[in-house]
Amino acid sequence: KDVKVATLEKSNGWSFEPFGRLMIDAGSVDAPDVINDPGLGFANEVRRARIGVKGDIPGGFDYKIELEFADNEVEITDATLGYDAGAAKLTVGQHNNFQSLEELTSSRFTSFMERAAFTDAFGFQRRVGVSAEFNPGTLLVQGGVFTDNIDNLSASNNSWGADGRVVFAPKLANTQLHLGGSVHWRDFNDGQSSVRYRQRPQVHFTDTRFVDTRSIAATGEFGYGLEFAAINGPFHATGETYWQKASRTAGAADPTFFGGYAEVGYFLTGGDSRTYKGGKFDRIKPKNPVGNGGFGAVQVVARYDYLDLNDAGITGGMQNTYGLSLVWTPTDYTRFMLNYLHNEYDDAAIAAGLTRSYNVDTFGVRAQLDF
Amino acid sequence: KDVKVATLEKSNGWSFEPFGRLMIDAGSVDAPDVINDPGLGFANEVRRARIGVKGDIPGGFDYKIELEFADNEVEITDATLGYDAGAAKLTVGQHNNFQSLEELTSSRFTSFMERAAFTDAFGFQRRVGVSAEFNPGTLLVQGGVFTDNIDNLSASNNSWGADGRVVFAPKLANTQLHLGGSVHWRDFNDGQSSVRYRQRPQVHFTDTRFVDTRSIAATGEFGYGLEFAAINGPFHATGETYWQKASRTAGAADPTFFGGYAEVGYFLTGGDSRTYKGGKFDRIKPKNPVGNGGFGAVQVVARYDYLDLNDAGITGGMQNTYGLSLVWTPTDYTRFMLNYLHNEYDDAAIAAGLTRSYNVDTFGVRAQLDF
Amino acid sequence: KDVKVATLEKSNGWSFEPFGRLMIDAGSVDAPDVINDPGLGFANEVRRARIGVKGDIPGGFDYKIELEFADNEVEITDATLGYDAGAAKLTVGQHNNFQSLEELTSSRFTSFMERAAFTDAFGFQRRVGVSAEFNPGTLLVQGGVFTDNIDNLSASNNSWGADGRVVFAPKLANTQLHLGGSVHWRDFNDGQSSVRYRQRPQVHFTDTRFVDTRSIAATGEFGYGLEFAAINGPFHATGETYWQKASRTAGAADPTFFGGYAEVGYFLTGGDSRTYKGGKFDRIKPKNPVGNGGFGAVQVVARYDYLDLNDAGITGGMQNTYGLSLVWTPTDYTRFMLNYLHNEYDDAAIAAGLTRSYNVDTFGVRAQLDF
Repeated sequence: KDVKVATLEKSNGWSFEPFGRLMIDAGSVDAPDVINDPGLGFANEVRRARIGVKGDIPGGFDYKIELEFADNEVEITDATLGYDAGAAKLTVGQHNNFQSLEELTSSRFTSFMERAAFTDAFGFQRRVGVSAEFNPGTLLVQGGVFTDNIDNLSASNNSWGADGRVVFAPKLANTQLHLGGSVHWRDFNDGQSSVRYRQRPQVHFTDTRFVDTRSIAATGEFGYGLEFAAINGPFHATGETYWQKASRTAGAADPTFFGGYAEVGYFLTGGDSRTYKGGKFDRIKPKNPVGNGGFGAVQVVARYDYLDLNDAGITGGMQNTYGLSLVWTPTDYTRFMLNYLHNEYDDAAIAAGLTRSYNVDTFGVRAQLDF
Repeated sequence: KDVKVATLEKSNGWSFEPFGRLMIDAGSVDAPDVINDPGLGFANEVRRARIGVKGDIPGGFDYKIELEFADNEVEITDATLGYDAGAAKLTVGQHNNFQSLEELTSSRFTSFMERAAFTDAFGFQRRVGVSAEFNPGTLLVQGGVFTDNIDNLSASNNSWGADGRVVFAPKLANTQLHLGGSVHWRDFNDGQSSVRYRQRPQVHFTDTRFVDTRSIAATGEFGYGLEFAAINGPFHATGETYWQKASRTAGAADPTFFGGYAEVGYFLTGGDSRTYKGGKFDRIKPKNPVGNGGFGAVQVVARYDYLDLNDAGITGGMQNTYGLSLVWTPTDYTRFMLNYLHNEYDDAAIAAGLTRSYNVDTFGVRAQLDF
Repeated sequence: KDVKVATLEKSNGWSFEPFGRLMIDAGSVDAPDVINDPGLGFANEVRRARIGVKGDIPGGFDYKIELEFADNEVEITDATLGYDAGAAKLTVGQHNNFQSLEELTSSRFTSFMERAAFTDAFGFQRRVGVSAEFNPGTLLVQGGVFTDNIDNLSASNNSWGADGRVVFAPKLANTQLHLGGSVHWRDFNDGQSSVRYRQRPQVHFTDTRFVDTRSIAATGEFGYGLEFAAINGPFHATGETYWQKASRTAGAADPTFFGGYAEVGYFLTGGDSRTYKGGKFDRIKPKNPVGNGGFGAVQVVARYDYLDLNDAGITGGMQNTYGLSLVWTPTDYTRFMLNYLHNEYDDAAIAAGLTRSYNVDTFGVRAQLDF
């Protein structure tokens, strides 16, 4: 178990653990001068401010409630009741559907300030549902049925869907491998009558999206993705592909949009490595942290990210991003990031004068802690 | 003291206890096909997601702040400063007025997913005020003056009211008896200029109300109720009646509406019983909980519930409900419920074609935990 | 360290301390009868209901997240990541700018229910930024650059400013002295295009402001203030002055508004005194608290408060307030206040018939606890 903020524990099996995270971002978005948009230029925000409680209840049960307070609003991220039945784990409540390695990896542990473009673009989010997870050794099987995010649940919403994911994660000599695949299906019913796929230029403090399908009348969606990762000492490589198909109303062709990324990273500080647990990346624990005479862990990461929102007559645009991330991890629970991203657009949703092919450079810094 | 999540305590009298509850509901509302309403059919919701803190402060004081986060909004349920003066207890802040045994019993311990129809219909809610409670032995006397719910407090609101309740709760041989009565009076002043009494069909995940007085111009309200309960081993019986009178503006006759219920329950599992404390029902603690080789407690409960919103020329409708509840309590702090309710309406607020007399069947399941 | 609610601590340097405050207010606003305003007369409110967590992270870091839940909304007050570098302390996140002794003193420890009129009038608030604090002995130097309050941060907001404060706080024989000065500068950029300075009549449960500049087109603001305080046994005296200048758009003269106060207080109970720490007033700890056979600390405080919002052709009005406060502190963490305030207006923003010179009397009581 992690050496972290103390947990209240009772001998009868009760535990109570408070936890939280804080991420403060600043940076800039530089687009062609001809584009006049209030979301360009400098901006800053409290990206995430979360507090939660979790713990065990005697009898094999556990609970988790996590709340997001950024933007001076409150949002329930996780609210679950779980039951641990040996190799299987059952969960009821709002929790992550089983889509994408990067989506499932905590935002505290991703290599860039924002996740791969396709994850937000395709609307991955937590939903209320029931799921089961089986984890016998190197194989991980996850599946569930879900209705909708708490924010969208109303008396008239009867959307529902099913999600599944399989991961094979063998350890070969000194290399931790991760091979995965996931499937996502949703029937909107009365819950929604359209989809809209769009994405920011890899930083969240702007609300300007240069790729955007705009509203597409649809009755459901179907997605599937492949996941790869490898960790070997200071090196890691990871990549994913994801296809998202919208089921349009009668007569119209169904578009399939696509996104993916490939990333490599290296620690400049000796003895440091990314960690992996339960089918996702885990916490970086610097070998020589600040406070113990060390400088923490310093990692450089390069990424190519691609998102194609053009298909079947819909022109949402294409985004090619080349990114560099400098990740400084002074201690296990603090982190500072510096991100530079070069975004190349074709068929962009926002015109730059007469052209829709242009570049946008974004720059971001983050101060982060969790407890 | 309950064996629960650990409490931080200091020898000087300070304590800090985090607590919370999570209830996840799903189910359906089946009305005559001729009624076309988005609130019918399947629905689900996070019914309650609450986190709070409470504790003692040296010198005889105590505090409690509880927050409700369901619907991705925040609402203060309780926010109180208390003082313990021996047999008397003083409380300042937002807390429950002293109306109805079922209203005062925690939602974690009621026999059905929703409380008796009259409690919500007549607008029982927590309000900001000052109250005193005397509890010398089997007699309990409670009273207070209250302004309004925090949500409705504004610079122009000067509504206020007084509430009182008396309970006599002797233990006769093996039977815990409860006999109670409460009185409620409110002058709306500038805080509100009308009342509206209405109710859902015994499940909360729909917003459709088949009984509804609609807005009645009023200057105040006056209510009074009677309470009965008896617990003997695996058996319990309970029932209440409540009369609510709205003071209409000059000239119009004042209507008195009525609600009540009668309930009986029985545990199928040996050795289990409902518990009672401080003038209300308390936690079910299964004799053979899950995790200790047992199956927990299984209880069946039957209820008849009645609500009459017709009087003095106002036709809000009548609701007769026959309900069955299966309550599975695997451990002290987890609970699963299955509810079936048959609602019969007369003079319903929603017409079914040419008639306002018809039946609505509702079905609900709940997963629940608290800590 | 204070004897307070227990803190979770680990030997490796981690700590986790929950904290909170609750203030419940009631009272009345009495203005000339000719003024017809819903904010006059009786009102009550939950003034503050806050819960937060703070602690240390191994490696010299610390964290703090505090949330305000009054009005059934949530607002982040503090959200910071700090680093302790010996005599210097670095802070990133939303925190108090360095304006005014009374603004920086916790609302739990001020002598009146509301702070000096100029603090709210001139818009002092927490903002997201980076700051440093040096505290070598009796000298305290604080400075930072800030963007805006989380509530106002958006992709298009690029307001920013700088704040600095110097305090000299020697202890002369039995007298704790405080001499301070602060400077505040802000460039609104795209974040706002006007300022509005206004103030309530020294109680918060009304939203009626008798002084109000109304919207003034402006590009920035510049403020500076002086601070004085002295504590000697049961006596204390304190006072401040503050000048706020708005930079109007081209052509218009820049108005400079002014506010200030002078206050004296005396404890009727023997052995009690105000306390002082880190450049601001701290907690009153009664020598003979309730619960130990004592009655707590009783203090009377008198204050003159002045706010002048007339300058350079703008007539926001002048407010002269004479206030009396009775502060009963039964124990270290509970407090009850009784405030009477006589406000004299000239050029008031609200006319009373034909005149804008009249008096408003306000009365308030508060029940308070913190943990």
